[in-house]
Amino acid sequence: MKQQKKQLRLGAFLQDVGHHIGAWRHPDAPLNAGMNLEHFKLLARRAEAAKFDMIFLGDQMTFQYGEDEHIGRTTRTVNFEPLTLLSALAMITEKIGLVATASTSYNEPFNVARKFASLDHISGGRSGWNVVTSWTLGEALNFNRDEVMEHGLRYQRAQEFVEVVQGLWDSWEDDALLNDKSTGHFFDPRKLHVLDHQGRFFKVRGPLNISRSVQGQPVLVQAGSSSDGQDLAARSAEVIFTAQRSLTDAQAFYRGVKEKMAAYGRHPDRLKIMPGVFPIIGESEAHAREKFEQLQSWVDPEIGWPVLARHLGGIDLSSYPVDGPLPELPLTQGNQSRQGLLVDFARRENLTIRQLYWHVTGTRGHWAIFGTAAQIADQLEERFTGGGADGFNIMAPWLPGGLLEFIDQVVPELRRRGLFRHEYAGATLRENLGLARPANRYADRAPGGAS
Amino acid sequence: MKQQKKQLRLGAFLQDVGHHIGAWRHPDAPLNAGMNLEHFKLLARRAEAAKFDMIFLGDQMTFQYGEDEHIGRTTRTVNFEPLTLLSALAMITEKIGLVATASTSYNEPFNVARKFASLDHISGGRSGWNVVTSWTLGEALNFNRDEVMEHGLRYQRAQEFVEVVQGLWDSWEDDALLNDKSTGHFFDPRKLHVLDHQGRFFKVRGPLNISRSVQGQPVLVQAGSSSDGQDLAARSAEVIFTAQRSLTDAQAFYRGVKEKMAAYGRHPDRLKIMPGVFPIIGESEAHAREKFEQLQSWVDPEIGWPVLARHLGGIDLSSYPVDGPLPELPLTQGNQSRQGLLVDFARRENLTIRQLYWHVTGTRGHWAIFGTAAQIADQLEERFTGGGADGFNIMAPWLPGGLLEFIDQVVPELRRRGLFRHEYAGATLRENLGLARPANRYADRAPGGAS
Repeated sequence: MKQQKKQLRLGAFLQDVGHHIGAWRHPDAPLNAGMNLEHFKLLARRAEAAKFDMIFLGDQMTFQYGEDEHIGRTTRTVNFEPLTLLSALAMITEKIGLVATASTSYNEPFNVARKFASLDHISGGRSGWNVVTSWTLGEALNFNRDEVMEHGLRYQRAQEFVEVVQGLWDSWEDDALLNDKSTGHFFDPRKLHVLDHQGRFFKVRGPLNISRSVQGQPVLVQAGSSSDGQDLAARSAEVIFTAQRSLTDAQAFYRGVKEKMAAYGRHPDRLKIMPGVFPIIGESEAHAREKFEQLQSWVDPEIGWPVLARHLGGIDLSSYPVDGPLPELPLTQGNQSRQGLLVDFARRENLTIRQLYWHVTGTRGHWAIFGTAAQIADQLEERFTGGGADGFNIMAPWLPGGLLEFIDQVVPELRRRGLFRHEYAGATLRENLGLARPANRYADRAPGGAS
Repeated sequence: MKQQKKQLRLGAFLQDVGHHIGAWRHPDAPLNAGMNLEHFKLLARRAEAAKFDMIFLGDQMTFQYGEDEHIGRTTRTVNFEPLTLLSALAMITEKIGLVATASTSYNEPFNVARKFASLDHISGGRSGWNVVTSWTLGEALNFNRDEVMEHGLRYQRAQEFVEVVQGLWDSWEDDALLNDKSTGHFFDPRKLHVLDHQGRFFKVRGPLNISRSVQGQPVLVQAGSSSDGQDLAARSAEVIFTAQRSLTDAQAFYRGVKEKMAAYGRHPDRLKIMPGVFPIIGESEAHAREKFEQLQSWVDPEIGWPVLARHLGGIDLSSYPVDGPLPELPLTQGNQSRQGLLVDFARRENLTIRQLYWHVTGTRGHWAIFGTAAQIADQLEERFTGGGADGFNIMAPWLPGGLLEFIDQVVPELRRRGLFRHEYAGATLRENLGLARPANRYADRAPGGAS
């Protein structure tokens, strides 16, 4: 059955007990949610039953919120490693995409290429790699460094890393394996290709020791919105996870990235822009705001300072007057996109440090929307039809409740409006996102061409 | 019910379509076995039903057998990445241990510590890490190097790598998480410990961002039998996978390693020595040898040269007279234990190059035993009761058939002799192997001690 309207895409960004850092104190919150397999099984199954395109796992290879005397008050500390978790979840789901974050700064391309290809085989074509460059000092200190690699350099490394991974994913043509028991030819050597990459950051011969994956290549997701990040996305990414709050900003970002794609010879439909959304659903807008205030009340005030510092790339504002304006801030080597978006927002809205601090504590700087299911749907529809997004990555404030409310109340509303599928369109993540299966770069060669 | 006799341990070493390189041409061999999830699900379930201690996955991050014109004739080319595969298999099994190989030369300790701890949580305490140093040139070329790191240096790095991983696994005491929603204390900061490792090869601050695993620490397995390898095993390992062929050699190795443990203050029971065994079961010994010859007949003769070179650390003998003796060979930077064992064997048995080549092609240099189920059991019993092994890692020549024959015929025979369990003793790999759960190194501190 053909849909009349363009369909929006939905991801469920699963963050232990939810994206609000007070969520773990919710009466319904499962204990040790980040290490609770039953919790993730429930979330994955419910998101699949609701026909979400994907579940999405963030990742940092360190503590998320500093290590001062209040550290014991935060929950963002222990989590499953994403690839092992998604491989497990692949076995209890059938259709939903499985997207995990992996860093280009603290991994090797051969290992990353292999793991996501392996997950793609295990899941029958549902894996996606969210490319990040890792900007925290905590991660640098866990990987033989004294400081974070400079921002531009990190992105140059990321670009080369992605090229190597994509090259390795094409090591084998789709029909390379012959399995000819009678003649003893297991594969066709002409359909095996040695990458032999030698670049500035990496020397990787290849081939990958895993056959071409079900999707041809796992879906490439990218999460940075800085200028370098947008460039990487325009060049390589198929999904972008971003964080614009206003419709105007979202439209400008959307247009900008899609235009940039042309410079790399890519059609704009080959990249789906899916901003993060932090929805609070109530019986009324006032009720939704009450629910948010309840979450806020569970955050110890002292937790706010390291959270704010984290969102400002490591700058500690605790020595400034808390009811005064944001001081001038240097650009750090940290997460420049998030830092830039947040500072712009604070200046435009004339926020005091205290107000900004509550803002990031609550919504992590993402687009927060409050209201009834219909009001939430209105805002998503406006942004989607207004050219600000191809879909949304749902960052439920608390889990599982916040996601289940979205599924039970907002998803039916989006369906009534003809904006969201009733059934999966295909079996792979690519098919559901409407992304073509990439041809193997070597497959057009004349027969007999050597590798 | 208490067993009267000491019990032997069994591992199922799963290698795509079996350990014999001709096995893929067996009429019953599944297609693309290395990438065939149903195949691995069947094997894991059957090994668990037979109460094996563990399934064991080897790993190399490259092709296994060179890249000459005959490469298309070998199957040892494409495989799942082990950690993603085991995480998937964790979901369809309940008791069997899940042991994967990971390299200390081409990974970072933080990543390895995390993945195995995550698998331990996912599986309810069943993960084990087989430590290898990776000796092939192919792997070096996939990881920014022009040549393999020198053997001694590789093991020095491995030793430090293992220390860092074990330190990270103790980042959190078992009872560190409080989950106290009323007071807002998620964990007890006094029970969180920062490793702050600064060594020759690694600088890793920690803590690990995953809570202490079900087994306290995943089981540490070690596969090298060189002098450096034995030293690493005596110091750190809890299971050792080795490859002595004769009873005398096995006894000497067993005694030697267990004696070495004393120097590190370890009780000999804390390390289980489990040699690889390559069993061919027939209705008679002659029938078993016929089955082996059938497998041999499926190997293209040209495949033998690169296989032999691989087992000799990269030395190509194809220019020597094939029916002459083994020439003098230099010690390479490759797998010195395997090279040494093989050269000793060839000299003692006066093998020609052709004979040696058929030997490694067939059994990969491991202990091959041929006969009826009772004869196989006799040999295992002799080696076990004779002080040459604590158990065996079963390297079925072809899969699934070779393992299923062992399960259906040899395992009942071992049970009749009182040598192998009827039921699992516990829920974790440690409990089944009879290994104590290690205490957290920080847990004995006086209350209030800082990290």
